[in-house]
Amino acid sequence: MNGAESLIRTARDAGIDVCFANPGTTEMPIVVALDAVSGIRPVLGLFEGVCTGAADGFGRMAGRPAMTLLHLGPGLANGLANLHNARRARTPVVNVVGDHSTGHLQFDSPLKSDIEALAAPVSHWVRTSTDAHRIGADVADAVLAAVGPPGHVATLIIPADLQSAPATGAAPLSKPPAPPAPESSRVAAALDALRHGQSSALLVGGPACQRGALESAARIAGATACRLVVETFPARMERGAGTPSVERLPYFPEQIAGLLDGVERVVLVGAPDPVAMFGWPGAPSRMLPEHVKVISLARSEEDVGAALAAVADELSTPAGSGLSLATFNPPPKPSGPLDANTLAAAVAAILPEHAVVVDEGATSSVLLYPALASAAPHTLLTLTGGAIGQGLPCATGAAIACPDRSVIAFQADGSGLYTLQALWTQARESLDVTTIICANRTYRILQIELMRAGIGEPGRAARRLTNLAEPALDWVKLASGMGVPAARAEDVKTMVRELQRALAEPGPHLIEAILP
Amino acid sequence: MNGAESLIRTARDAGIDVCFANPGTTEMPIVVALDAVSGIRPVLGLFEGVCTGAADGFGRMAGRPAMTLLHLGPGLANGLANLHNARRARTPVVNVVGDHSTGHLQFDSPLKSDIEALAAPVSHWVRTSTDAHRIGADVADAVLAAVGPPGHVATLIIPADLQSAPATGAAPLSKPPAPPAPESSRVAAALDALRHGQSSALLVGGPACQRGALESAARIAGATACRLVVETFPARMERGAGTPSVERLPYFPEQIAGLLDGVERVVLVGAPDPVAMFGWPGAPSRMLPEHVKVISLARSEEDVGAALAAVADELSTPAGSGLSLATFNPPPKPSGPLDANTLAAAVAAILPEHAVVVDEGATSSVLLYPALASAAPHTLLTLTGGAIGQGLPCATGAAIACPDRSVIAFQADGSGLYTLQALWTQARESLDVTTIICANRTYRILQIELMRAGIGEPGRAARRLTNLAEPALDWVKLASGMGVPAARAEDVKTMVRELQRALAEPGPHLIEAILP
Repeated sequence: MNGAESLIRTARDAGIDVCFANPGTTEMPIVVALDAVSGIRPVLGLFEGVCTGAADGFGRMAGRPAMTLLHLGPGLANGLANLHNARRARTPVVNVVGDHSTGHLQFDSPLKSDIEALAAPVSHWVRTSTDAHRIGADVADAVLAAVGPPGHVATLIIPADLQSAPATGAAPLSKPPAPPAPESSRVAAALDALRHGQSSALLVGGPACQRGALESAARIAGATACRLVVETFPARMERGAGTPSVERLPYFPEQIAGLLDGVERVVLVGAPDPVAMFGWPGAPSRMLPEHVKVISLARSEEDVGAALAAVADELSTPAGSGLSLATFNPPPKPSGPLDANTLAAAVAAILPEHAVVVDEGATSSVLLYPALASAAPHTLLTLTGGAIGQGLPCATGAAIACPDRSVIAFQADGSGLYTLQALWTQARESLDVTTIICANRTYRILQIELMRAGIGEPGRAARRLTNLAEPALDWVKLASGMGVPAARAEDVKTMVRELQRALAEPGPHLIEAILP
Repeated sequence: MNGAESLIRTARDAGIDVCFANPGTTEMPIVVALDAVSGIRPVLGLFEGVCTGAADGFGRMAGRPAMTLLHLGPGLANGLANLHNARRARTPVVNVVGDHSTGHLQFDSPLKSDIEALAAPVSHWVRTSTDAHRIGADVADAVLAAVGPPGHVATLIIPADLQSAPATGAAPLSKPPAPPAPESSRVAAALDALRHGQSSALLVGGPACQRGALESAARIAGATACRLVVETFPARMERGAGTPSVERLPYFPEQIAGLLDGVERVVLVGAPDPVAMFGWPGAPSRMLPEHVKVISLARSEEDVGAALAAVADELSTPAGSGLSLATFNPPPKPSGPLDANTLAAAVAAILPEHAVVVDEGATSSVLLYPALASAAPHTLLTLTGGAIGQGLPCATGAAIACPDRSVIAFQADGSGLYTLQALWTQARESLDVTTIICANRTYRILQIELMRAGIGEPGRAARRLTNLAEPALDWVKLASGMGVPAARAEDVKTMVRELQRALAEPGPHLIEAILP
């Protein structure tokens, strides 16, 4: 057995069964080991941002890590933006990067770079293997770091010569630590705060958006009449019919005041004290008003499910009582012009049961969250780290994790173009992903920012740098070029028809929705 | 004046006239300043790797830096691979990255990351502005660092609030230091070494591949009969009719021995002691055989032109005497099947005068270098850092730098897909770039590496991870989707016709050459 085989065996024995890869010369022994040792499915991405974003989507849906396989510093660099998103989502990822042979590293060869330095900003754990016999143990440590609650990016760098060198067998995996239960004093403090009805809010995020935790949250809301609010960008949230109704924290600070009007106490569970995406002039960075009392019931690395259940039990609310769960009541199929409103309604009307909705719609998806409240039950994945180009790769990984579920990528056009190579992987792997491109042909959020900054009439440079219409991208051709069947919808009727067709047919599809 | 305006004024007064940009919310004051202060042309790239690769191509051809404008850590991360290539090419680049407002940085907002840590591995110089009044001086220092010989990536990070804050005017630029002349002892040592005819070689690289330096090198070769060899991946080299004939150092170590058979002394000028791309098992990392005596005449940061002229003058070779310059003798238009050989011949036969050839053809372009030896005079740009996805952005920047020259991107398909978004910028800016996609539908270099490693029959994983044919990419659709007219060539006759058409028509074109 060589080092590469001990890597694959250890990873496989630790439950890893997918490798999102774009290998190069320095990773070829690992590629060969993927044939020598069975059990891990290699999935090729034609750009590393596809691999890392897919690992994020896979980890969110499977609840366990995939591994990546990336080529040296530049390969890692190409995957960093989506590792940033995975870090913010607290997704478990075992991020494997090859390095030059140890003897070669003393020379300044063209591809040499400081891989550990590049990995550190996005990784909870970084190690470079130094001994082939220890690679199995390194992998076991990487998996342990990745699955440590709630989930982390663990980067393991393996020089090429160690991959080929003789190695001992697979290393056993230590049992990952269970998330600690929060102290009873915090449960008591949360209870005190929540017993004030509408003037208190329970703010859920991270693992508190999973089904069981959300149901406990709904029991609490049912018993106390507190507000139930979710962080702006949950990594994974169960939604639609049968799930609790949860308001969403808006994006702009000036919208928060309206939503939280009258709220005096906020109990955080799985969510951090929310911070605005940007530090806008004159607006606070902390999104909760100064006068609001903040109580932390459980952080995302703690057992948020147990904490919520403890609060709910203290309120003596038997499971199921006082629950306000959404009924299945999707909007009718929309008519009229195709815009962000009717597009969201079309998705909500047609959404199949147990779909996974990946939302990187940016300004086009503001209306999607409310529209899906009473749609068929589904899982929502959002852009946790703000690094655009996450949606198509994330949908790809989610589809690999959940082959029996439809995946819908609700995708802004400007963001989607960052990692459009994901479409090819969807075609190769015959994944049931339906991509809806929200084609407004602008970086609309930037045009909004210009307006907010008082730039009523942007000059030529500002127009040129925020406008994607000269020339217009043709997503039907782009998708076809990647092997994904595609159609364009310029009206609602076509949109509904194409969406129904895409969802009915196996394999990936793309619909370019032309929006105003 | 605000900080952003002092940035643009200082950059403009320092001679920067192009900004390759993909801004976000934290860079909007700089976008607005591009309108308020005239003189810098904003060029939008729809992915940051396009912006940084274009800045590399621009800097190589213009001999002065462009600026970039990137959004926070993730935007920088997306541009790192091509900054790595620019660093290896010693290209001057002023790399501008926005950051959160200073007051916002104390909070762990979703897009926060360690920008300086990400920038450091690819940057010669990194600074974060801390005072709006100092932004002009920061920019002047960044330009100085970028143009310090032979050229560097200088990264300046500017928090959003400082961009908007009142600032003093533009800062004056210090005169960049001239490259130092190498000591006379090295000129003497080089002379000694070179006076042994064919058993000595002059190895040129970096700035020694510019026209004047190459001519001095040719005078030396003419006088001494020494071998004239270029490093494997020159950043920019003048070639074709009227330029000296220069052999090229091959890629694989086992090919070196053949080329350098009989060579006892190598004089380096502008090139480092060459190191192999990878540390292959059993092969040395240093590409020159152990017994070869190495003399460094001038490093790339020194005045290589003066050093070469000094050697040539010592040899009493008047300018023009003993020169072996290539005559204009292009191959005839090829016939027969379309393959790497006939494709290279087609380009050589049709190449217009003073074209810029950007070669990221990988295995498909091995025959291009010899084929172009007697083609029309042209400039060759190659992949200096091994980070793939450089060709299309580099061609884009070269075309912006040289609007009167045809640019030909000779592009491997797998590498090209990394940054295909560059095609859109070519369409928007109506650039005269003709992209030839070498569509062998594999990562051929990896298949060669498997063979070299003795894997005669790769398994399923190895086949799946090195093969782009399932499904085949359709580059005609991909290019059309980006707004670039495109055609497919499956035979030489079509290839020649489409290449002639593409070069005759203004604006960008793409030809997908189907190769075996």
